[in-house]
Amino acid sequence: MNDIPHMTPDEFRKHGREVVDWIARYMETVEQFPVLSQAGPGETRSQLPEAPPEEGESFDAMMADVDRIIMPGITHWQSPYFFGFFPANISAPSILGELLTAGLGVQGMIWATSPACTEVETLVLDWLVGMLGLPGKFKSDSQGGGVIQDTASSSSLCAMLAARERATNFASNEKGITQTLTAYTSNQAHSSIEKAIKIIGIGREHLRLIDVDETFAMKPTKLQEAISADRAAGLTPFFVSATVGTTSSNGFDPLTAIGEICSRENLWMHVDAAMSGTAALCEEFRDIHDGLEYADSYCFNPHKWMLTNFDCDCFYVADRAALINTLSILPEYLRNQASESGEVFDYRDWHIPLGRRFRALKLWFVIRHYGVNGLKQHVREHISHAQAFASWVKSDDNFEIAAPHRLTLVCFRHKEGDAINQRILDHLNHSGKMFLTHTKLDDKLTLRMSIGATATKREHVRQAWTWIREAAQACEYND
Amino acid sequence: MNDIPHMTPDEFRKHGREVVDWIARYMETVEQFPVLSQAGPGETRSQLPEAPPEEGESFDAMMADVDRIIMPGITHWQSPYFFGFFPANISAPSILGELLTAGLGVQGMIWATSPACTEVETLVLDWLVGMLGLPGKFKSDSQGGGVIQDTASSSSLCAMLAARERATNFASNEKGITQTLTAYTSNQAHSSIEKAIKIIGIGREHLRLIDVDETFAMKPTKLQEAISADRAAGLTPFFVSATVGTTSSNGFDPLTAIGEICSRENLWMHVDAAMSGTAALCEEFRDIHDGLEYADSYCFNPHKWMLTNFDCDCFYVADRAALINTLSILPEYLRNQASESGEVFDYRDWHIPLGRRFRALKLWFVIRHYGVNGLKQHVREHISHAQAFASWVKSDDNFEIAAPHRLTLVCFRHKEGDAINQRILDHLNHSGKMFLTHTKLDDKLTLRMSIGATATKREHVRQAWTWIREAAQACEYND
Repeated sequence: MNDIPHMTPDEFRKHGREVVDWIARYMETVEQFPVLSQAGPGETRSQLPEAPPEEGESFDAMMADVDRIIMPGITHWQSPYFFGFFPANISAPSILGELLTAGLGVQGMIWATSPACTEVETLVLDWLVGMLGLPGKFKSDSQGGGVIQDTASSSSLCAMLAARERATNFASNEKGITQTLTAYTSNQAHSSIEKAIKIIGIGREHLRLIDVDETFAMKPTKLQEAISADRAAGLTPFFVSATVGTTSSNGFDPLTAIGEICSRENLWMHVDAAMSGTAALCEEFRDIHDGLEYADSYCFNPHKWMLTNFDCDCFYVADRAALINTLSILPEYLRNQASESGEVFDYRDWHIPLGRRFRALKLWFVIRHYGVNGLKQHVREHISHAQAFASWVKSDDNFEIAAPHRLTLVCFRHKEGDAINQRILDHLNHSGKMFLTHTKLDDKLTLRMSIGATATKREHVRQAWTWIREAAQACEYND
Repeated sequence: MNDIPHMTPDEFRKHGREVVDWIARYMETVEQFPVLSQAGPGETRSQLPEAPPEEGESFDAMMADVDRIIMPGITHWQSPYFFGFFPANISAPSILGELLTAGLGVQGMIWATSPACTEVETLVLDWLVGMLGLPGKFKSDSQGGGVIQDTASSSSLCAMLAARERATNFASNEKGITQTLTAYTSNQAHSSIEKAIKIIGIGREHLRLIDVDETFAMKPTKLQEAISADRAAGLTPFFVSATVGTTSSNGFDPLTAIGEICSRENLWMHVDAAMSGTAALCEEFRDIHDGLEYADSYCFNPHKWMLTNFDCDCFYVADRAALINTLSILPEYLRNQASESGEVFDYRDWHIPLGRRFRALKLWFVIRHYGVNGLKQHVREHISHAQAFASWVKSDDNFEIAAPHRLTLVCFRHKEGDAINQRILDHLNHSGKMFLTHTKLDDKLTLRMSIGATATKREHVRQAWTWIREAAQACEYND
């Protein structure tokens, strides 16, 4: 039998340095790439062989293909000129944490399969309770606690599941759904809420999309009306998801008013702060969480705006027993003394997957590298860029602001209507110079300037504004 | 405002090399660590500060803590003496792929957000159809296709969801569950099936755990009886999950017989080959998939036994429209020309999360580095180690083999009963020299020798067998 062609540790040293250097060069040159990939459908694949190699290839050949074939198919989320969707910002210490996680290759499904994987995660999630000023009930020394999930979509799903079980005395897990439960969120909430209610067997018809006010925040009176109407119809309200910073326009639902309703009506209140929660690092923005003391669960994503590589969503519950009782499974081969003692957390029971990697390492690295003050500076700087951008928009007669812009998302549009805004968008994105995306607000096509890439500085935002105005002029002439 | 303390590209070069060197040293020395962490509950956390640092710390301080505090809390899944649970083997090219993914920091939620992320994934999953000899209907040029999920648990959940929707004409998503659906799997199946039926609102009471034969394989006659009984009771059978290599004892369900039943009864057939599917790389083991042509969905995990870092589960469906129609959501801010053309895959609609990282890169690196032949050698070598181990057990009068052992899991036990087997297990695991786990078969405590760490060679397996016999002797004397 031939030897298996493993890469030796010395070869790994050599190629590892090459990849590290490649990434460092990428950091230095990322702003030179077209932000939105200019590749057409199938263009990347067509350059790659349709069959895998029978014999192994050199690492150099692989990296050459990365440069030649993969890179033109990349949309550069790390470009300082990436203003699309939401940020997915990363940082050097986070990349190194991810590398170390990969090198250790541990499975943290239960405490015993790597105690440090669980304990560092619990510790860092406790740290974040303090760092964001979250209610103490989310800390592990209370009845609650935090866990890293892949995404806020999964957190919403787990929150809704635990709510379903609490509302049915943990009978739905056993008997299936036997009554008509109803859930509530605003018509601006993330699509994951709709996805979750479909998944858990309650059905989209039983999700009420509550109207919002002129700031795109849920109207509590409308929420109360919907709940009362459902109760009057013999249905069973069980869950409300409030959003701290909606995806479309960064609207903030009024948590206190919603929380009072949830408390009175005995509904599970989930708060989704995926993107905006990070702002609470700074005392002056912490009021975005006012009312969070009512919440049964909460999540925010360090992988959006806290310099941490995807995936890293921090999900908290006030009553961990409700979550664990919902998701727990215990096959014989996972039984062990530590779990049965009740002294440890087994995070497999806190989410859908069984397996899990040591994701806390990168988050721990980020917090330690930057320190709390460094992260605050990061937040303040991005917010100041967005506020500057908004001021430039306001001072230009051709454009208007379309929504409040307290943090880093500025929704704006050319005043001449959808057609020109679409042309501006296409013109900018096809140029490759910068990338931004759109939404609809008040049924009007609206441009979204979402600031949050690690590399984005004031000069990039200023340059972007210049390009936007130039694009507007070019598109006007095209009429 | 102070500068944000980002790590510069040059600092990243320096620290990146340090982490690469650290991992290379770890590869060289991993067998010297106690395999099962000897840390007690709370021991890792108690050495770490209860509050995060206000100001950033040096990278050296972080790495020193990794060595001093984290490492004693690690259970070394990469040790050549790790024989517990199932393998989670990794490789140098996979680690470098993961590093590159982290450095690029792209979001592949839809095709347009990085075309290469989607297209390399589709390509590599097509490659694997050929490499494993899977049915052509799972390739993207048919009506089906593959996607990377985090875990087989999530794949089972998505399969069951798509089955639920197909069985209810996509009405459950809208109206919720309004009829009593029933699902089937063997009593040896993975706990994720039970977790999934709870999650999707059907309830554990409606999962039938079918009896197995003496090889721990599902009995098709019992499956047919259960389905018929449910139909007679007015229930609606909709889903069967068959296992290719159960977790507990590596039993193989008879796919052809089960498939014929599913076909006749019009049930969705899912096949979970999480650990064992990798064996099909080799023609001589490909019969484990005989009957897979009946399957509606299939998954296996390169992150278990194919040298690829977690997370990387390959999930295939024969009818991608059923999956996409089940999970699709389309908020305005994700609308784009490429998606609406229908020319591209948007993988957000193939699983629970919205966000996704470029996980195909590590898988592409693994296949290209090893080549198909290198991966086959890897599979054959581990299987040969397990067969050698089984032969040693058989030749020892104190031990017996407890289940068939075609691949890399050998279930065995000391003949004197549960007590001594428990003592042997505890003795070995507490020694730190090697790690193995247990199961119950025929209601007897059974030791599981699961071979599959990248570093495990014949000498390690031989050494383990010596330690097992020594432990048995020591435990006998303890009586």
